[in-house]
Amino acid sequence: MALIVQKYGGTSVGSVERIEAVAEKIAKFRDRGDDVVIVVSAMSGETNRLTAMALEMMEQPTPREMDVLLSTGEQVTIALLCMALEKRGYGARSFTGGQVRILTDEAHTKARIREIDSTRIMAQLDQQNIVVVAGFQGVNENGCITTLGRGGSDTTAVALAAALDADECQIYTDVKGVYTTDPRVVEDAHLLSSITFEEMLELASLGAKVLQIRSVEFAGKYKVPLRVLSTFEEGPGTLISLEEDTAMEDPSIAGIAFERDEAKLTVTGVPDVPGIAYNVIGPVSDAGIEVDVIVQNVAADGTNDITFTVKCAEGDRTKAILDSVSNSLEAREVILDKKICKVSLVGVGMRSHAGIASKMFKALAEENINIQIITTSEIKISVVIEEKYLELAVRALHSAFELGDPDAENSIN
Amino acid sequence: MALIVQKYGGTSVGSVERIEAVAEKIAKFRDRGDDVVIVVSAMSGETNRLTAMALEMMEQPTPREMDVLLSTGEQVTIALLCMALEKRGYGARSFTGGQVRILTDEAHTKARIREIDSTRIMAQLDQQNIVVVAGFQGVNENGCITTLGRGGSDTTAVALAAALDADECQIYTDVKGVYTTDPRVVEDAHLLSSITFEEMLELASLGAKVLQIRSVEFAGKYKVPLRVLSTFEEGPGTLISLEEDTAMEDPSIAGIAFERDEAKLTVTGVPDVPGIAYNVIGPVSDAGIEVDVIVQNVAADGTNDITFTVKCAEGDRTKAILDSVSNSLEAREVILDKKICKVSLVGVGMRSHAGIASKMFKALAEENINIQIITTSEIKISVVIEEKYLELAVRALHSAFELGDPDAENSIN
Repeated sequence: MALIVQKYGGTSVGSVERIEAVAEKIAKFRDRGDDVVIVVSAMSGETNRLTAMALEMMEQPTPREMDVLLSTGEQVTIALLCMALEKRGYGARSFTGGQVRILTDEAHTKARIREIDSTRIMAQLDQQNIVVVAGFQGVNENGCITTLGRGGSDTTAVALAAALDADECQIYTDVKGVYTTDPRVVEDAHLLSSITFEEMLELASLGAKVLQIRSVEFAGKYKVPLRVLSTFEEGPGTLISLEEDTAMEDPSIAGIAFERDEAKLTVTGVPDVPGIAYNVIGPVSDAGIEVDVIVQNVAADGTNDITFTVKCAEGDRTKAILDSVSNSLEAREVILDKKICKVSLVGVGMRSHAGIASKMFKALAEENINIQIITTSEIKISVVIEEKYLELAVRALHSAFELGDPDAENSIN
Repeated sequence: MALIVQKYGGTSVGSVERIEAVAEKIAKFRDRGDDVVIVVSAMSGETNRLTAMALEMMEQPTPREMDVLLSTGEQVTIALLCMALEKRGYGARSFTGGQVRILTDEAHTKARIREIDSTRIMAQLDQQNIVVVAGFQGVNENGCITTLGRGGSDTTAVALAAALDADECQIYTDVKGVYTTDPRVVEDAHLLSSITFEEMLELASLGAKVLQIRSVEFAGKYKVPLRVLSTFEEGPGTLISLEEDTAMEDPSIAGIAFERDEAKLTVTGVPDVPGIAYNVIGPVSDAGIEVDVIVQNVAADGTNDITFTVKCAEGDRTKAILDSVSNSLEAREVILDKKICKVSLVGVGMRSHAGIASKMFKALAEENINIQIITTSEIKISVVIEEKYLELAVRALHSAFELGDPDAENSIN
């Protein structure tokens, strides 16, 4: 008998019928004797409906009241899911974030969890009840309702699993798990049976959006075994494991992530003096623009080129900011290129295995794809290339690293 | 500077635009320096939408979860109304029933308020904020969400006014106040500027449904001055006053109520022995059927006729019950008549003024309306007559008691 926390997202509970299907799924775990704590999101569409009303009311809705408003979405789901379970003869009790007492900080609409009181939940489990908790929400020290930001239900589930010392935290979603890359780009992308937290973090932040990144950090920090799996199809999903599997001889690459939605800015000919990178990036980040890849290189003439990427939508604004400071920077030129993309190899094996980078560059060269920027970290190598080569590059890498070969499955997981 | 509790019902807050209009109304009170605490219902249609989902899920939804579900309706409104106030530059803070701590008993879906903690509300008023409270909901000793049943928002408002020792509790609705009778039946029915609690109770229970009757009882018990007025039209509405106005010389009739939806049952020829009324009414009330008017009269032959009324929809079921026991009752006959109605005169003045009853009977006799049953109480006289005479009777009485004459307004209020 295990204690399992399960989280079902908005699509999984998008209608009365789907909530009934989720109840059936939960019942199976209960039947085999597991204690189950369920975390649910708002029914799909509901958060948008509520947000639209708030925006109709005011351009920038009061954050405190936004949280009061949005938190009703999950509250509806917990009630309906409990009814679906009760109808099937299972004892079930719903709890809002405030009722559990999921204590957060004061930051309305993007609060962070501080502490979870497990008393009420444990008491219900002791009485053989299924506990259904509203995701995405908590309460601050003053008893005001807070929300964790979009996707926060994943974080609720992981935090609950940590607080309850659960055996596993299962995140049910509309995909079967984590793939070696996007199956829409590479046909033989295959499902990973396991992946490390660090790999998952890199894959998530690089665009393979299956789990909210905060929840993965949280799970890693509190060592909660996390599993991503499909609500709609049977299957073991992907386990996000606490440690890399040391038994594996050749743990090279877990997957390939990519980001289409970036723009590249290059500031050329700035003097090679201390503080110049700050002078370039400072005004951009002061304007609230998030900067992704940054590279700097000294040119032969002793001046510097600084290149970085931002979200494509911020490209023009960033260019305008840099143009306005280019005189004081003594820059030769500010160049904006929106036709780029980023492709990244991710894998903990990279740490100990030389030759991954050269194999990557060779595969791209063979397709005549020019690399504009290279950045590396412990478990990731990213390249920025011309946007039109994205699919070609991902497929070439997927094949070069034999990610698509089912026979290779055991060696890469 | 006064402390005013205002309640706005579902129609008053039925859309973003209407909530904005309510915010404008509230702002006027705030501008003149009043402290205001607002109680709101769910946006019209919302409770029905939520109920429909629950009924789709299960025939008899779990009461505990029904309350979790339905309480979201008011929670949406409090958030939106606070936004509308903040947008206009007024500080506003929303509270759910649980956040105020409106403590109720355990009876889910029909809970009763036990106690209200006014600390948080008073603290917000001290900070010059408008407080917006979700009506209809509370929380029990265990922290579970409870609801007060449909129309419970009126009760929330009155209970809050009592707990806060408010100067007035204003119930905004879609009618201008309490009329001498239904304006759809009598054209010159006029708005009462005031009415006593007792009169209001009789009028409400007799069919002039403006306020939820529980809230009127509550207001009477805790001596909360209660005013009914329109959200959509300016006007002073009707004050439900704590005491009858002793300055008035001729306080006769406050209004005329009527009930179309009744059926009359007569059990004839039962022996005139102790316990016979119980033997007739007992089986009916055991079946959960509410009995309204009851009269009993000894006939010349020493047997008894017992007559009573029930809701029309319960007529056939009641007849069947009586038929099944008529042998043991030794009854001659059980007669069901669905074509009846009840008309009632209500007024505290009745207590001290003779002649009201005879004036009533005379007015009906002049229209050739036969009276089938008469019952009286301290402040009310009801007659049961043939249903087709309802409008005629109400108009005749309205005119006989000069309720329609605007010049008579001062004398009757």
